[in-house]
Amino acid sequence: MNEVIDLLKSHRSIRKFTEQKIPQETFLELIRAGQSAATSNHVQAYSIIHVTSPEKRAKIAELAGGQKYVETCSHFLVFCADMKRPTDSAERAGAEVIRGMTEQFLVASVDTALMAQNVVVAAESEGLGICYIGGIRNNPAEISDLLKLPEHVYPVFGLCLGYPDQDPEVKPRLPVESILMEDEYREDAASVDGFDDVMRTYYGARTGGTKDTNWSEQLSPLFNAKLRPHMREFLVKRGFELK
Amino acid sequence: MNEVIDLLKSHRSIRKFTEQKIPQETFLELIRAGQSAATSNHVQAYSIIHVTSPEKRAKIAELAGGQKYVETCSHFLVFCADMKRPTDSAERAGAEVIRGMTEQFLVASVDTALMAQNVVVAAESEGLGICYIGGIRNNPAEISDLLKLPEHVYPVFGLCLGYPDQDPEVKPRLPVESILMEDEYREDAASVDGFDDVMRTYYGARTGGTKDTNWSEQLSPLFNAKLRPHMREFLVKRGFELK
Repeated sequence: MNEVIDLLKSHRSIRKFTEQKIPQETFLELIRAGQSAATSNHVQAYSIIHVTSPEKRAKIAELAGGQKYVETCSHFLVFCADMKRPTDSAERAGAEVIRGMTEQFLVASVDTALMAQNVVVAAESEGLGICYIGGIRNNPAEISDLLKLPEHVYPVFGLCLGYPDQDPEVKPRLPVESILMEDEYREDAASVDGFDDVMRTYYGARTGGTKDTNWSEQLSPLFNAKLRPHMREFLVKRGFELK
Repeated sequence: MNEVIDLLKSHRSIRKFTEQKIPQETFLELIRAGQSAATSNHVQAYSIIHVTSPEKRAKIAELAGGQKYVETCSHFLVFCADMKRPTDSAERAGAEVIRGMTEQFLVASVDTALMAQNVVVAAESEGLGICYIGGIRNNPAEISDLLKLPEHVYPVFGLCLGYPDQDPEVKPRLPVESILMEDEYREDAASVDGFDDVMRTYYGARTGGTKDTNWSEQLSPLFNAKLRPHMREFLVKRGFELK
């Protein structure tokens, strides 16, 4: 279609990086590109913590479930949903601010994700590789303490950035007809079955036939237990009361 | 820096579209580019409703607070966080599925946002203009009924896509030092004050001096009242219990 779309479609997570560092001016351009993403009512409800301390990186790698590339990538970022800056600013301008609404949590989380995805696209356009680290939500309170996050700020995900030292395949996605519907929701279990076959072939080929599983089976352990059951209490304590 | 970063930095919302329609193959490529975004544990927890019915478009435009461009753009999409497909699939594969966790709500909302932002970047790379419609959350229950969304699916935002019939300025963003921090959170009220000055100048210039306000003042009405106070109850009713 065009080179940008080709770039987007070539995305895969990178978990092995060379020792080359991203130049500072390039890095700042990635962040500025991130900030150019749409933001709900211009709130810009996000902050990024660039973690440079090797000790903090090692601690985060451990807290995220032993993800070594948090330490070995060029730049490791923690993307935070930040309702503190916009609400504090409104308060200084004279508003009697109401905090803790579910909608505010959603606005800040979505704003953060849109911004991060622009950083990712910008990074990949510069030949960098990336890996999102949702694992920081395994221990969000410890991560928040480590980064001295104040109330009304929470860590949504981490992001590894660096020059790729591996070239993994692009992972298949559901067929477009599974997720795209016209005028009303439509279930399509048959297309999921087809995708399960695709994924079984993919896993088999990647592992020389030793990994015999599919998409639905891979998801099972994720939903078979309470997923990160601490999240609600953590958020409430940090001022995201989900009212 | 490079053309992709220039493209990202040139984003502004478009609210006036020509009558030209996006070709179907281009449209599908945008969606596929969206699907290529990273997804938490490969859950792909999203669905897109392409709203083609003029009646439904008119109704959504009204429910979103009178946003006429929902009707006049080439393609109007509703991006839905969808925990139904992955959890139903895991269930069919034999899992005893637990639903309604706060973390699942977050995963699905973030997955949807990352995917949507890729669609946006792809669209803008094809010369299209876009406008996110958060206003669909003014009346999420009515929107859900209109689009027959089942339980465990909710509408996160809408998106107008089409060929621009206006050329608005890029809206300023906070300076990068306001939102980018090293190793720990740092408040920077001074940079917000500077940005307030930038925005006062911007609003003044855009309105021939009649709009005398700044960023913090603009945010005040947003936080001075309960923002979309129905959201929590709506989500709980739809199976996102935020446990």
